[in-house]
Amino acid sequence: MIRLACDYQEGCHPKILEKLIQTNMESTVGYGFDAYCESAKAKIREACQAPDAEVFLLVGGTQTNATVIRSILRPCEGVIAVKSGHINGHEGGAIEAGGHKVLTIAAHDGKMCPQELDQYIQDTFADDAWNHSVIPAMVYVSQATETGSVYTLAEMTAISEVCRKHNMVLFVDGARLGYALASEGSDMTLADLARLTDVFYIGGTKVGAMFGEAVVFTNKTLTRNFFTIQKQSGAVLAKGRMLGIQFDVLFTDNLYFEISRHAVAMAMKLKEALKAKGYQFYAESPSNQQFVILENAQLAKLEEQVAVSRWAKVDDTHTAVRLCTSWATSEETIDKVIELL
Amino acid sequence: MIRLACDYQEGCHPKILEKLIQTNMESTVGYGFDAYCESAKAKIREACQAPDAEVFLLVGGTQTNATVIRSILRPCEGVIAVKSGHINGHEGGAIEAGGHKVLTIAAHDGKMCPQELDQYIQDTFADDAWNHSVIPAMVYVSQATETGSVYTLAEMTAISEVCRKHNMVLFVDGARLGYALASEGSDMTLADLARLTDVFYIGGTKVGAMFGEAVVFTNKTLTRNFFTIQKQSGAVLAKGRMLGIQFDVLFTDNLYFEISRHAVAMAMKLKEALKAKGYQFYAESPSNQQFVILENAQLAKLEEQVAVSRWAKVDDTHTAVRLCTSWATSEETIDKVIELL
Amino acid sequence: MIRLACDYQEGCHPKILEKLIQTNMESTVGYGFDAYCESAKAKIREACQAPDAEVFLLVGGTQTNATVIRSILRPCEGVIAVKSGHINGHEGGAIEAGGHKVLTIAAHDGKMCPQELDQYIQDTFADDAWNHSVIPAMVYVSQATETGSVYTLAEMTAISEVCRKHNMVLFVDGARLGYALASEGSDMTLADLARLTDVFYIGGTKVGAMFGEAVVFTNKTLTRNFFTIQKQSGAVLAKGRMLGIQFDVLFTDNLYFEISRHAVAMAMKLKEALKAKGYQFYAESPSNQQFVILENAQLAKLEEQVAVSRWAKVDDTHTAVRLCTSWATSEETIDKVIELL
Amino acid sequence: MIRLACDYQEGCHPKILEKLIQTNMESTVGYGFDAYCESAKAKIREACQAPDAEVFLLVGGTQTNATVIRSILRPCEGVIAVKSGHINGHEGGAIEAGGHKVLTIAAHDGKMCPQELDQYIQDTFADDAWNHSVIPAMVYVSQATETGSVYTLAEMTAISEVCRKHNMVLFVDGARLGYALASEGSDMTLADLARLTDVFYIGGTKVGAMFGEAVVFTNKTLTRNFFTIQKQSGAVLAKGRMLGIQFDVLFTDNLYFEISRHAVAMAMKLKEALKAKGYQFYAESPSNQQFVILENAQLAKLEEQVAVSRWAKVDDTHTAVRLCTSWATSEETIDKVIELL
Repeated sequence: MIRLACDYQEGCHPKILEKLIQTNMESTVGYGFDAYCESAKAKIREACQAPDAEVFLLVGGTQTNATVIRSILRPCEGVIAVKSGHINGHEGGAIEAGGHKVLTIAAHDGKMCPQELDQYIQDTFADDAWNHSVIPAMVYVSQATETGSVYTLAEMTAISEVCRKHNMVLFVDGARLGYALASEGSDMTLADLARLTDVFYIGGTKVGAMFGEAVVFTNKTLTRNFFTIQKQSGAVLAKGRMLGIQFDVLFTDNLYFEISRHAVAMAMKLKEALKAKGYQFYAESPSNQQFVILENAQLAKLEEQVAVSRWAKVDDTHTAVRLCTSWATSEETIDKVIELL
Repeated sequence: MIRLACDYQEGCHPKILEKLIQTNMESTVGYGFDAYCESAKAKIREACQAPDAEVFLLVGGTQTNATVIRSILRPCEGVIAVKSGHINGHEGGAIEAGGHKVLTIAAHDGKMCPQELDQYIQDTFADDAWNHSVIPAMVYVSQATETGSVYTLAEMTAISEVCRKHNMVLFVDGARLGYALASEGSDMTLADLARLTDVFYIGGTKVGAMFGEAVVFTNKTLTRNFFTIQKQSGAVLAKGRMLGIQFDVLFTDNLYFEISRHAVAMAMKLKEALKAKGYQFYAESPSNQQFVILENAQLAKLEEQVAVSRWAKVDDTHTAVRLCTSWATSEETIDKVIELL
Repeated sequence: MIRLACDYQEGCHPKILEKLIQTNMESTVGYGFDAYCESAKAKIREACQAPDAEVFLLVGGTQTNATVIRSILRPCEGVIAVKSGHINGHEGGAIEAGGHKVLTIAAHDGKMCPQELDQYIQDTFADDAWNHSVIPAMVYVSQATETGSVYTLAEMTAISEVCRKHNMVLFVDGARLGYALASEGSDMTLADLARLTDVFYIGGTKVGAMFGEAVVFTNKTLTRNFFTIQKQSGAVLAKGRMLGIQFDVLFTDNLYFEISRHAVAMAMKLKEALKAKGYQFYAESPSNQQFVILENAQLAKLEEQVAVSRWAKVDDTHTAVRLCTSWATSEETIDKVIELL
Repeated sequence: MIRLACDYQEGCHPKILEKLIQTNMESTVGYGFDAYCESAKAKIREACQAPDAEVFLLVGGTQTNATVIRSILRPCEGVIAVKSGHINGHEGGAIEAGGHKVLTIAAHDGKMCPQELDQYIQDTFADDAWNHSVIPAMVYVSQATETGSVYTLAEMTAISEVCRKHNMVLFVDGARLGYALASEGSDMTLADLARLTDVFYIGGTKVGAMFGEAVVFTNKTLTRNFFTIQKQSGAVLAKGRMLGIQFDVLFTDNLYFEISRHAVAMAMKLKEALKAKGYQFYAESPSNQQFVILENAQLAKLEEQVAVSRWAKVDDTHTAVRLCTSWATSEETIDKVIELL
């Protein structure tokens, strides 16, 4: 069975596994205060050109979103996201469980429009009864988005400017950050992101790690007691070095970027081949997730050999499916899928 | 440097690592719905002689305590624990973050007294103003306790009876469950625990796994939507099979028990040697944690070669320290520590 | 200054005040366990033809919504409301502060469409990843709605049927319930509402009381420990009889309905006069809130003598304003406002 | 039936009632933005000699404690109180429902010892694992305490100094503040309290009002968005002027202090008479609550004519009961009770 349903269906990149094997019998302090974590954090700071940033290593994406958001917002404050934002629909209400409302605005190709964001914030505070309502205090965007689209440097800069104008914290969910940075036409770097945001994270789980998300706070006024909030959120790994080791490997010799480029290349090959064959796409994506519209009978047949994600019903006879690539996706796999379609 | 400060300072047991290596390139569905998780759960049910139990796999202990407790309690309900209970002092307020009070009663050698529990519940409801106060609805005990002591079958049975008499959910924190079952004089089995409790967990992190806790619900009225609550709590691992693989290995050929017996044997060797040398103990423990009282100068010297946990100040010149054994503790290490003391 | 901005700008109905004066020096038990509260509850049960219902008296609307909702929902469960629902936008995120997401569907003239509700629930559970998302477990509608519209018996029956089909709790916010029941063309009674819902409340604050909302639970499986949850929510009044006295008076000699009819009659007089003068309305309302569109210069002039609520900007030169009537609105006031417009 | 069980069993002081009657038909803006509230706040600021303080008016004590505490604490932060503190046992877990742990230390005659507080905070941060635990960030004391005792100026100053030394917010629950200030031997003023604390409240419910608590923030860095947090907490009264009117009357011509002195005088009369008769007291109180130990048969007989609060079982034949005085307690009542005992 070929599996392209998601980008977290294999184990970890062999270089990570190798390091886990090699270090397994070592004895270190727990909770992430070991030398591997320190090394990983130093490399991340360097990759972000943010020598003063504070870096924390957590286990998974929902956990990271929930922990970061509730560490920053006060009661009655909310976070603005597009309707299709991961925190709004796919995290079991984790943000609300932390006490905060997700305030939604429309998504355009999965992305937030800076002008609409600006207008939304202005409208909110222009309302005479604004102080009876949740007060927006943070903006959440995903890079790449939930449907694979990618913010350009100009777009992210515009969002950042709106946030700074209104004193909103800008938080970027980078669960698939590598794929955004490696996407076709991307003009953004880690350093740009560090410069434009208050806090963001570099996803490991979907980009080669067994698990792990590295949160980078460039706005250090936000990090007071973050470790304890992380602990309280069940987001501290006892054998914390496992996270350090993984990110240390990912940020050695550009492995993180190499993995990302490979996955995007595989996705682009698939996309171009399917476009050439006349397939329609449910969303236009330059990154590792592709959303193809299939006729239902064809989908049923494909699923005999390839596991995909059924994403949305398009009409009575067509379904949009998601196909994801990762470090583990071989060219043979892509060729086979192209052949099957 | 020898490290005995805790039981989570090495990686995972070699058999687990081997299986992780062997399965790394396999492609499976995510979130724990794969065959490894199914296999692990089946083996756990069998080991518990609880064919109808529902098993969930989570990442860490604080996360598991918080998720289980908030999945069960309604608003205004609280959980009774002894003062030294892990949820009361060492989890950053995770239970309160979930909205619930930890109601404390005295610990005796780290354990809850069934009679005192009974009295506490009776007193609570005998108060005219009971309905102005948090309503106890759950009892939490750790097996082994935070100071290494172990409930006998008779003791746990008595606690269970009090819980059933008062319609309280009994939840056992088994972060170190293996060490309790393997401890000297233990007369309890996994099946006993399954029979006596509503829900408990089998700790992996501290008993050979890289991470992971297996929650066993024998009271299935408590599990409605647990997966989504787990998701909301940031406690679902995307590459969920990593948990399945680890518990599958731990529950193959009795590895879990073998690891536990080894660690306890090492702890007993250390304990007996130090007792023979005249050392006093801060707590009497038949399991893998030992709490020895050292003269401060001697401690400082020891720490040049052995990392221990400073547990409590005993007096101006003495400190109680914790030494833990695990699957990774060799007899040479123990001999060396004995020699040093 | 004439004030029609809202329906809570005077004190309480004279008959309530009279009873408060008359009973002021009496000494009773606190927290609502006095005879006045018992009497009020009995009268409410009778008015609802629900002899087994449980009635609780709370202070305000946001408090009541938040307390009822969090008393019923479990973690990961959400409440469905229309976008314009009071809990979604005007309660400072009180539902989210209780840990629950407000799941929104479109409003049509302020109301929820039963078919859309049915479809929303079906779609939610049809999604393969439904268990990664907030699980709808309750439906919230306001009667009258936030823009003054009123559900007919047929409409409320249809919503009730959808809720029962999908095992959702139906909760009706009756902050302005009197005005709905007294509205033109209304074919619904308190008894209908009691029969069709699981829990609803009878608003006092906006219908003649100084403060107070009476929650009626006909589904008594939902009331376990409600008093303590109320206490925990800061929603128990120490001098609880103040609530009992007010509702006792309101449900004596049909005062509640008489107040409501008067206010609606005043609103209808205003509405008809303004319609006759050619004014456009922002929302069509048969109850005590009227939403008129005014030219901005005219509004500015009006506001010199009449306080209204600015509701929405219609276009660059027009604004929708809300005018509310209550027990305290005299016919002279309405005549004066008609004259001014 | 004579009722001395609590200090909230009558209505409100006649002067308040009179003003409510007189203003009932006035029409004002809602939510506390009216002129009565402004006037009340100005008078309170003046009485506190704190011209820059921000004052908020809430409905009840539990509500106020919960709202103030959750408005200030961040996730993972807790509030230190004595074990007998109202927030620890009698508010249905309202603080925990807001996500925060109540950290308890011993009470001495109902009061917190400054030295023990200092030691507790030092010990907390001296622990190597402090960052795995709830972080104390606020200190809560009640003036008068739950058992009627009263902090002297020296004692409160010492607590304030400990708080400032450790950067803890000092919050004083003044549900019975009037009785503390009017108590025998009291050497503290409102101005002292304003100077020594960050935030405190002046209880109305138990000191003559129908309901209402006035929160005074002298540390204004803590009030950002407090109104919205109050709204979110269900703690904003729609007809907000009812609170303003009550506190305006209470702070006109020293009524608040006059009421308090009367109640304390009645309590002292009772206390001295019972002492003279040889009764033992469960707690030594110079304020309006008295805790007398009665033989059970005598208690049963007394309860035929006087409602008291059964406070604690002293031994098999004796019970401690609470008798409270208020503005409504007449000298005849006290004489009668003395006669009965």
